[in-house]
Amino acid sequence: MLEELKEQVCEANRQLPIHNLVVFTWGNVSGIERKSGLFVIKPSGVEYDKLRPKDMVVVNLDGEKVEGDLNPSSDTPTHCVLYKNFAAAGGIVHTHSRWATIWAQMGKPIPAYGTTHGDYFYGAIPCTRKMTPEEIAGAYEAETGNVIVESFKGTDPATIPAVLVNSHGPFAWGRDCFEAVHNSVVLEELAMMAWHTRVMTAGSDEAMQRELLNKHFWRKHGTHAYYGQNT
Amino acid sequence: MLEELKEQVCEANRQLPIHNLVVFTWGNVSGIERKSGLFVIKPSGVEYDKLRPKDMVVVNLDGEKVEGDLNPSSDTPTHCVLYKNFAAAGGIVHTHSRWATIWAQMGKPIPAYGTTHGDYFYGAIPCTRKMTPEEIAGAYEAETGNVIVESFKGTDPATIPAVLVNSHGPFAWGRDCFEAVHNSVVLEELAMMAWHTRVMTAGSDEAMQRELLNKHFWRKHGTHAYYGQNT
Amino acid sequence: MLEELKEQVCEANRQLPIHNLVVFTWGNVSGIERKSGLFVIKPSGVEYDKLRPKDMVVVNLDGEKVEGDLNPSSDTPTHCVLYKNFAAAGGIVHTHSRWATIWAQMGKPIPAYGTTHGDYFYGAIPCTRKMTPEEIAGAYEAETGNVIVESFKGTDPATIPAVLVNSHGPFAWGRDCFEAVHNSVVLEELAMMAWHTRVMTAGSDEAMQRELLNKHFWRKHGTHAYYGQNT
Amino acid sequence: MLEELKEQVCEANRQLPIHNLVVFTWGNVSGIERKSGLFVIKPSGVEYDKLRPKDMVVVNLDGEKVEGDLNPSSDTPTHCVLYKNFAAAGGIVHTHSRWATIWAQMGKPIPAYGTTHGDYFYGAIPCTRKMTPEEIAGAYEAETGNVIVESFKGTDPATIPAVLVNSHGPFAWGRDCFEAVHNSVVLEELAMMAWHTRVMTAGSDEAMQRELLNKHFWRKHGTHAYYGQNT
Repeated sequence: MLEELKEQVCEANRQLPIHNLVVFTWGNVSGIERKSGLFVIKPSGVEYDKLRPKDMVVVNLDGEKVEGDLNPSSDTPTHCVLYKNFAAAGGIVHTHSRWATIWAQMGKPIPAYGTTHGDYFYGAIPCTRKMTPEEIAGAYEAETGNVIVESFKGTDPATIPAVLVNSHGPFAWGRDCFEAVHNSVVLEELAMMAWHTRVMTAGSDEAMQRELLNKHFWRKHGTHAYYGQNT
Repeated sequence: MLEELKEQVCEANRQLPIHNLVVFTWGNVSGIERKSGLFVIKPSGVEYDKLRPKDMVVVNLDGEKVEGDLNPSSDTPTHCVLYKNFAAAGGIVHTHSRWATIWAQMGKPIPAYGTTHGDYFYGAIPCTRKMTPEEIAGAYEAETGNVIVESFKGTDPATIPAVLVNSHGPFAWGRDCFEAVHNSVVLEELAMMAWHTRVMTAGSDEAMQRELLNKHFWRKHGTHAYYGQNT
Repeated sequence: MLEELKEQVCEANRQLPIHNLVVFTWGNVSGIERKSGLFVIKPSGVEYDKLRPKDMVVVNLDGEKVEGDLNPSSDTPTHCVLYKNFAAAGGIVHTHSRWATIWAQMGKPIPAYGTTHGDYFYGAIPCTRKMTPEEIAGAYEAETGNVIVESFKGTDPATIPAVLVNSHGPFAWGRDCFEAVHNSVVLEELAMMAWHTRVMTAGSDEAMQRELLNKHFWRKHGTHAYYGQNT
Repeated sequence: MLEELKEQVCEANRQLPIHNLVVFTWGNVSGIERKSGLFVIKPSGVEYDKLRPKDMVVVNLDGEKVEGDLNPSSDTPTHCVLYKNFAAAGGIVHTHSRWATIWAQMGKPIPAYGTTHGDYFYGAIPCTRKMTPEEIAGAYEAETGNVIVESFKGTDPATIPAVLVNSHGPFAWGRDCFEAVHNSVVLEELAMMAWHTRVMTAGSDEAMQRELLNKHFWRKHGTHAYYGQNT
């Protein structure tokens, strides 16, 4: 079942080390088929260059395995919560990529310091609050999804397709698993540049002008976009 | 038309990822034929390894497409303004290369901290002022060119062949598109070293001695240059 | 003798430059066969791409060469002390990898700033005290082992499989030589991210929540682990 | 003439980009034959991958070209001064390698922060004083050599085989051109680690313990060395 999606998710997982986003097995990609409510996710602890489409695990939105020989990623319940709450997410990526993880460890959102940021993210990339001891001791991975959802109250996840989980690392999403990987690469690039910008501006979180952010985001997104070859 | 220039500009664009100056499609190179007033520029949003000379777009100095199947780079109006105002520019490069973009996000010029800088740039590399809401809401890309030109009042762009656009990223130029790429590589290298120099000197913008800057710049440029094999 | 172990240790040594942990010959890996009390170690000063299994040196726990044409690593006495005191060590790695060495030069332990750390290390990675002039002038390499052992008083080396030697560099260990290399890679990654976290938090050593550290460490280790494919 | 030395110097120059020490043509290597007082040096402005042994230039200690079709490096007079004053130099390397250049731009010596430093350099790596306007306007490249020599008053250049030229970049030397390249790689590595050590120790120049420096330097050098396979 879902053979084409398995191939895509397998390929998207294999792109993680190519884009230098992961060490060893520190990341996972999933992709969902909305009509059946099933998603495909990387098996836990398997190295990327050994992944084959048939190793992918099919899971439903309650996190139950529907098909597959291997255990799904231990982060599967987080993916479930995000798919249930973020209609915009057709694919999800979790990594411990260096620069995004540094910001997660700092416990701070990444300000929109420049147009590279504005081309993809319509404002600061949020960092979740610290989880309570109860949340950590409970259904930890699902609660991780819950604090992510909480941090998007009042924000459309389609316009800010990534988050930093406090003391942990980033999640990113997109219309499909490939766009989610694309956004993970962008996030890492932004995080690297933002760290260095912030050091030199004495820790200022002052973002770029709102007008410039608007201009750049809408130049590439929505009905009036004029970047690229699409009309 | 302009077949040789198309080949050159195509090749120069393809050098951007080789020199690690771009992620995805975040940069563009153009080259001008001065006698016809036409220039060749990268199509918008196309990946570098798929670019072929026939994909290049020919544009006039009013930014009107003269030949080509694809849309030209959305930054085309900025290139127009620079070609019209900077006689020294035979080729122009725009990227979001990491270290130059960090300085652009800091909103600060790059001081001439050492002879590597002086070998190519005859003084600090300027950073434009922030654009007004009107400029951003208006002909944004042309206005971007205008603030660049404004920041070169009293400075010969042939002696400082690059600029940082505030909250955005770098533009560089050269006698042709290959020298513009060369200068973009140099700029990135200088920006990286200057960032680390500045951190350790407590944010000082104090440049190298003017005499040393003069010596190094004129050792490589102009009639009395004695670097290299040209006489 | 120990032909299989020689092949493993040779291969583990060759992985050091592949993982970008060493420059020139700045590192060594050993592996022990506990029942005979003999271990196999890299010869001193030999380049990794020239290493063959038969170049490996067999040494006993008193540091005496038992077999081999070449001199063992000059750090052999440190390996001896660690094998004698740390039952958990089946393999040991010493390098001067950049980020771990920076922390060693700072003379500071690496705080557990995030879950990437907690997935592998159950608390801060210690840094040894400075050695006394007498220790340096005496059996220096063995004394290096002694200060490492001293810094693990009250800590199980199986749960924190690495250490920073003050003003020097890291040692890491694992159940075998490959896990020791794996842990060296993790250490380097953690050290890089921790350095940048610490700069931006004004030098704070405040670690992540203890509950979160517990959760992540025991999610991957011990009887109740549920990461990966092992049951 | 000097065919073997030309081959060595050519090969040593070609190693510079392999070790990531140069961008474009920003570096040069020379090697001397002491009995004839002639040395071989890279031609000015030629790219490394195009260099052939027959392109090398033979120069005497007055900087006069003795053989060769091309102009020697514009830094040739600096090499002359160093060969005349430093008997220990059989080969010399000049680059603008990133981290060493950052320290040169900071105008500060690199403290001996750890044993990696002590394994190669018997104390801080000096930074020259700023040159006077007269020195810059005069025989600039020879004067560059003179300020280097001045900064080694009372220090044996064989024990500290590198220097930072203020506001410029590094020179390194060794018994032959290959050891000079080796020392340039080490210098770059040390400079990177020292920069990060210094940031985190609030700009402290406090070096490692002198006893430890002694131990490590003499463990690898001189009659009592016991590192490696040489007896």
